[in-house]
Amino acid sequence: MYTQTAPQESLSPDQTPLERLSVLLDEDMKAVNALILQYMDSQVALIPQLARYLIAAGGKRIRPLLTLGATIMFDPKQREKTYYLSAAVEFIHTATLLHDDVVDESLERRGKKAANLVFGNQASVLVGDFLFSKSFQLMVESGSLDVLRILSDAAAVIAQGEVLQLGTTNDIETDLSAYTKVIESKTAALFAASCEVGPTLCGAEPEQIEALRLYGMKLGTAFQVIDDALDYSADQQKLGKEIGDDFREGKMTAPVIFALKKASVEDRAFWERTLGRKEQEDGDFEKALNLLQHQGALDQSVDLAWRYAREAQKCLDALPESNMKSIFHELAEYTISRNF
Amino acid sequence: MYTQTAPQESLSPDQTPLERLSVLLDEDMKAVNALILQYMDSQVALIPQLARYLIAAGGKRIRPLLTLGATIMFDPKQREKTYYLSAAVEFIHTATLLHDDVVDESLERRGKKAANLVFGNQASVLVGDFLFSKSFQLMVESGSLDVLRILSDAAAVIAQGEVLQLGTTNDIETDLSAYTKVIESKTAALFAASCEVGPTLCGAEPEQIEALRLYGMKLGTAFQVIDDALDYSADQQKLGKEIGDDFREGKMTAPVIFALKKASVEDRAFWERTLGRKEQEDGDFEKALNLLQHQGALDQSVDLAWRYAREAQKCLDALPESNMKSIFHELAEYTISRNF
Repeated sequence: MYTQTAPQESLSPDQTPLERLSVLLDEDMKAVNALILQYMDSQVALIPQLARYLIAAGGKRIRPLLTLGATIMFDPKQREKTYYLSAAVEFIHTATLLHDDVVDESLERRGKKAANLVFGNQASVLVGDFLFSKSFQLMVESGSLDVLRILSDAAAVIAQGEVLQLGTTNDIETDLSAYTKVIESKTAALFAASCEVGPTLCGAEPEQIEALRLYGMKLGTAFQVIDDALDYSADQQKLGKEIGDDFREGKMTAPVIFALKKASVEDRAFWERTLGRKEQEDGDFEKALNLLQHQGALDQSVDLAWRYAREAQKCLDALPESNMKSIFHELAEYTISRNF
Repeated sequence: MYTQTAPQESLSPDQTPLERLSVLLDEDMKAVNALILQYMDSQVALIPQLARYLIAAGGKRIRPLLTLGATIMFDPKQREKTYYLSAAVEFIHTATLLHDDVVDESLERRGKKAANLVFGNQASVLVGDFLFSKSFQLMVESGSLDVLRILSDAAAVIAQGEVLQLGTTNDIETDLSAYTKVIESKTAALFAASCEVGPTLCGAEPEQIEALRLYGMKLGTAFQVIDDALDYSADQQKLGKEIGDDFREGKMTAPVIFALKKASVEDRAFWERTLGRKEQEDGDFEKALNLLQHQGALDQSVDLAWRYAREAQKCLDALPESNMKSIFHELAEYTISRNF
């Protein structure tokens, strides 16, 4: 629902950078949301029903906000041209979520029962395919083959990252480098592409396009590390998804990888049983939380995310000063502090 | 494996039009197959493993053959330009098969255990996504936004058709018009696009492009009607997939729809139990075969396919005479006679 926002409100120092971005791009995002609704429509009623369930459930729309923001940083007059692309990146993201939830047998997403539980795995797979196709229709409307190349490359990398993750799941030998490769592919690649397409369409300098691409990459990596840490620490209600999902599935994420580095023989056996063999009993998750807490594995994860956030900020040095650049700068830090 | 073919062999009257097409386009298809192998490759070993399992298992490559054939009909010099597109349509098809098999819980495909049973549903969903992304990378290489529009539209229609099919499955009220809509979307749309992209890239006249698009649409519809009839009649070994799949899943296809039109109260109760409620017992499939046979429902299905094949042939009237046009003409009839 759209709420009129007075100008002074948009300058409130209490606002998070994400809120500032949302207020600043409110008119643009309304246009993007209209496109999203238009392209998710279909005579086949189940499609908009399912898509609406997920997309209308909210989500932070961070990827389209990045696309719009990165465009405006270079040429505010081109913003309308990127509405299609902003909708396209949200569709790729949503399609990925739908397929992820099927693959992970998720129970909850964005504070609601996961779509696969409500509509079935079959519908989730097929509506995911539909949204994915629609994202390409949206990209074609941008009229730029360069942009299509960036986004189809990103889509392939995402799928690759998801398959890579299948291989590391339940493998307690997974190290930080394998983990980083997974999250760079499955999450950060779309952040990178979201930041890259706008400047590309604006005809920005190659070094500037590259700076924003890399900013997105680092931001997305920080974002995912924090996401993985939150799965062992967040307030479930605020996060809008069940915590402990990664534990239940035996996913190898930063906190566990850090904990395993310091694990005693006994602790290692615990992780091998619970994550490696997925033999979990009552109280195991609480024990896992306790281990991570006491061994500083969550702090180490946050430190890792900080390093990526700082690197993201450094990428912005190559770009001229602007209000939007400042917001992008703050956004990198905000990614770390979020507990939503 | 490539086998040298002597010229006289390529003129053998015993060859099916599909074989003639394969021989005629042998060099082109080698290039297309090389692209297929190149684009299915990935550092993530599971991806080429799974893709190879399905793609190398054979398949008739009918869609890329249509793309190449339709191009050559207009401008043989442009054939190389369509190699990327030929590979792209095969990738879209393969991605669809992978997701279909997950959705349908298939047991067999192309004479082998279905990929989802060998590699798991998770890998099938994700590798399907990978191949789908790769198909767009291939399209981008064609350098034509028109072609990208045609194929992204087709991909959306296919997904829509699959969702539509979910809705008609187990619903014995499904009529011929609903069935036709499903198969036009899930199967014929990709045949149509496969025939349309080559002439579009060659800059053929709009009426000629439309004639070939419609040819593909009708051909694809005939193809799917026969496919559905074969599921109640084919020699399983020749078909390379288990027969009775549609029955087991309660899919509403042409043979059953024709049988239901003439069904006695008792027969209707049989279909309602077996397809509607999926309460199946030993001997039910044999009884279904018997009913379809005796009520002429298979013959009616073949008649329906014939009508579409004839319509496909009529579409070709708008095109100048050529050897390729003759082959396309025969291909429409051949679609009916196939029992592979």
